[in-house]
Amino acid sequence: MLPEKPIVIIGGVAAGMSAASQLKRQLPDRNVIVIERGDYISYGACGMPFYVSGEIKDYNKLIVLKPEKAESERGINLKLRHEALYIDPKEKIVGVKNLENKEDFAISYDKLVIATGSSAIVPDIDGIDANGVFVLKELIDGIKINNYIEEKKPKKSIIIGGGFIGVEVAESFVKRGMDVTILEAAPRILTVLDEDFSKIAEDSIVKNSVNIIKNAKIKKINKNREGYVSEVVLESGEKIETELVLVSIGVKPNSELAKNAGLELGERDAILVDRFLRTSDENIFAAGDCATVYHKLLDKDLYIPLALGANRQGRMCGENIAAIIKGEKVEEFPGIIGTSMTKTFDLEIAKTGIGENEIKKYNLKDIESTDIKYFAKAGYYPQRSKIWVKLYFNTKNKKIVGAQIIGNDGSALRIDTVVASIYMGATVDDLYSMDLGYCPPFSPVWDPLLVVARQALKKE
Amino acid sequence: MLPEKPIVIIGGVAAGMSAASQLKRQLPDRNVIVIERGDYISYGACGMPFYVSGEIKDYNKLIVLKPEKAESERGINLKLRHEALYIDPKEKIVGVKNLENKEDFAISYDKLVIATGSSAIVPDIDGIDANGVFVLKELIDGIKINNYIEEKKPKKSIIIGGGFIGVEVAESFVKRGMDVTILEAAPRILTVLDEDFSKIAEDSIVKNSVNIIKNAKIKKINKNREGYVSEVVLESGEKIETELVLVSIGVKPNSELAKNAGLELGERDAILVDRFLRTSDENIFAAGDCATVYHKLLDKDLYIPLALGANRQGRMCGENIAAIIKGEKVEEFPGIIGTSMTKTFDLEIAKTGIGENEIKKYNLKDIESTDIKYFAKAGYYPQRSKIWVKLYFNTKNKKIVGAQIIGNDGSALRIDTVVASIYMGATVDDLYSMDLGYCPPFSPVWDPLLVVARQALKKE
Repeated sequence: MLPEKPIVIIGGVAAGMSAASQLKRQLPDRNVIVIERGDYISYGACGMPFYVSGEIKDYNKLIVLKPEKAESERGINLKLRHEALYIDPKEKIVGVKNLENKEDFAISYDKLVIATGSSAIVPDIDGIDANGVFVLKELIDGIKINNYIEEKKPKKSIIIGGGFIGVEVAESFVKRGMDVTILEAAPRILTVLDEDFSKIAEDSIVKNSVNIIKNAKIKKINKNREGYVSEVVLESGEKIETELVLVSIGVKPNSELAKNAGLELGERDAILVDRFLRTSDENIFAAGDCATVYHKLLDKDLYIPLALGANRQGRMCGENIAAIIKGEKVEEFPGIIGTSMTKTFDLEIAKTGIGENEIKKYNLKDIESTDIKYFAKAGYYPQRSKIWVKLYFNTKNKKIVGAQIIGNDGSALRIDTVVASIYMGATVDDLYSMDLGYCPPFSPVWDPLLVVARQALKKE
Repeated sequence: MLPEKPIVIIGGVAAGMSAASQLKRQLPDRNVIVIERGDYISYGACGMPFYVSGEIKDYNKLIVLKPEKAESERGINLKLRHEALYIDPKEKIVGVKNLENKEDFAISYDKLVIATGSSAIVPDIDGIDANGVFVLKELIDGIKINNYIEEKKPKKSIIIGGGFIGVEVAESFVKRGMDVTILEAAPRILTVLDEDFSKIAEDSIVKNSVNIIKNAKIKKINKNREGYVSEVVLESGEKIETELVLVSIGVKPNSELAKNAGLELGERDAILVDRFLRTSDENIFAAGDCATVYHKLLDKDLYIPLALGANRQGRMCGENIAAIIKGEKVEEFPGIIGTSMTKTFDLEIAKTGIGENEIKKYNLKDIESTDIKYFAKAGYYPQRSKIWVKLYFNTKNKKIVGAQIIGNDGSALRIDTVVASIYMGATVDDLYSMDLGYCPPFSPVWDPLLVVARQALKKE
């Protein structure tokens, strides 16, 4: 009898390692091979701004699972510093290059998982190759930025892109003693939020001495004689001196392998997967930031690369492959609703579900919103704490479809109560009726969520 | 035409003022009279431990609504320092004493709301009348304790009763520089929680230098020559020196007026109200800590005096009376599930729904629990933060029926996501499928609620 062909996973970070771990748990006797280009697996990418800020002292803390442990304890066959070159779906083969000895070889797979993640988008600007210009996507990027700050002790920094990562790193750079300028191409930062909510956040960020230039079109990046970044030149002619530039204008899926293998792609060229995480080839699955994800509220496969979705897809990918091999029932991915949170300075920001952007992009009808500014704790509690909550609901059936929250400590996690409400089809009345907790240090008697629900009721 | 008889409300704190405000909003032309024994209305009773701790400097901050404002802005006819003596349901009359001039008079009512609240239970112990022995129920109690601490500068204190108020005030007294001993009659403190969870809390409280004596039966309280408390003597013979005693062993409903008027009483002699907040007399309503409250999960009218339920009952009472008068539809009280939260030292504690106590008391079947200890933030985040979560679910239909949470900052409000799940009939699978928020300073990728749900799934 021929030995069983291995299950191969391309990519060893969030989704890939979740899939691998799940597969070994379900099928301990099967050979599960993980091909990872880099030196690290399974690290907390979302923690990197807090490493760059100096709050997390040692980058090793960001590594959730050490390679030795993945191999010895979980029995995963790990191939670090190996790059997948091609996939041949007909022959069920992955071509691999060992980046150490430059040797190429091929692995036959039984089932394949593509978990190649995403790459930072780097704009094509003159001077973008200057020393001191960074992205923050992989662990090695965080290490490079930290080393640069320690060695060069830059006083001035520029962040290109005012999204969640941009504003998180703005705080990190301020903590490292730098002047920070955010250059945002759009007329406002944090475009994931509604316009009014992004303004609330912007005002607070500016109060923390961050300079924000909106509608900023970058012409070029100037270098000094040593090849280090010296200034960023805008189309307007404005020149901004800097010793450090972070580019954080978004990510794109690493889907070239899949594309070349003829697999179907979806939104923004992400690998299209069905509710079982299967690609257009029945033996190839995909998960995480390289793939589309099912949006439960919009009933669409979209490109929304977020950590929990990636981990959940990875795990479910592993479970479903194991189920297929064992002849058991596969599970449907439950779908995401785009919940995201961030922290910048003393501000917590959270969003879930549908907002202004989604209504516009998908031309959604019968959706209305209401918003409040309230206390996040009892009004008389000494550390007074403000919170803004906006609630989106369907005007026909009153079902809650989205929310945005900005406020001080204790604000962001409130989004989860809205998430639960959305998942369970709660109406505005349902939310208003809930017996939410009350304790002066955390909440007023009428929690802001109850207050916003009550206000939404009045709109009926 | 005879003038319309007024709507009378007995009691001007949480439920009473909520009812009065709602009535004036709905029926601005009606005379709404509030009879209040004390000097203050509408204060945040739950904030008193934080006033006693010195965190809230001025007790006026606890007053949500000043009497002048209630009269001038809301048009409420406020009778402070007036005591209701009797209710005559047949004649629809309330007998009232003006506590200033001692005059008695009667008010005819159209509709009556009883919102007389609750009183601290004071045990019948020799010496309980000593100076320096306090309860903490009304605003005046908080003011007295604060004044006593400022004048006498006590070094040692005893708290009789280790419930939520007891452990909150323990922190307050430590903050005021006192040694604190909690005397608890039961074999454990925080008996509202499951035994294992109360132990977790106890261990943490003890670490904050609070002395806890369990199974403590108090024999008597000794006074010094000036009549001030000097020591508490236990049945065991142990004597504990003290200069200050707080009695916090629970509350009882102020239902004498209702009882004497022949109204039906419910659990623990609380005034029995239906889902519309009506008592056994069709013209008399009751709300707040003097009344029963409908428990949605247990489908029972219980005595669970908590702030949000009281405020909600009061508001709905006002709405329903207005609706009856206007010939509109009355609303059903949605019911509570007993959500409660507290903070003591660096610990946040929350409970909702069914736990060990409810299973025992109501002999509930087919309910199981699972619990985890996890990170409340990303595991690598510098201020590491622990959280314990226990989830109760029905083994037949997998519906979530309760939860208990203990942990550091950001733990307690997570209970609200469970509350939403319970209200909407979510199963363990539903909870596990939710796209909860993730950001390293607030939450790990897999929020503790997802982790506990996953563990519950394994129990299937």
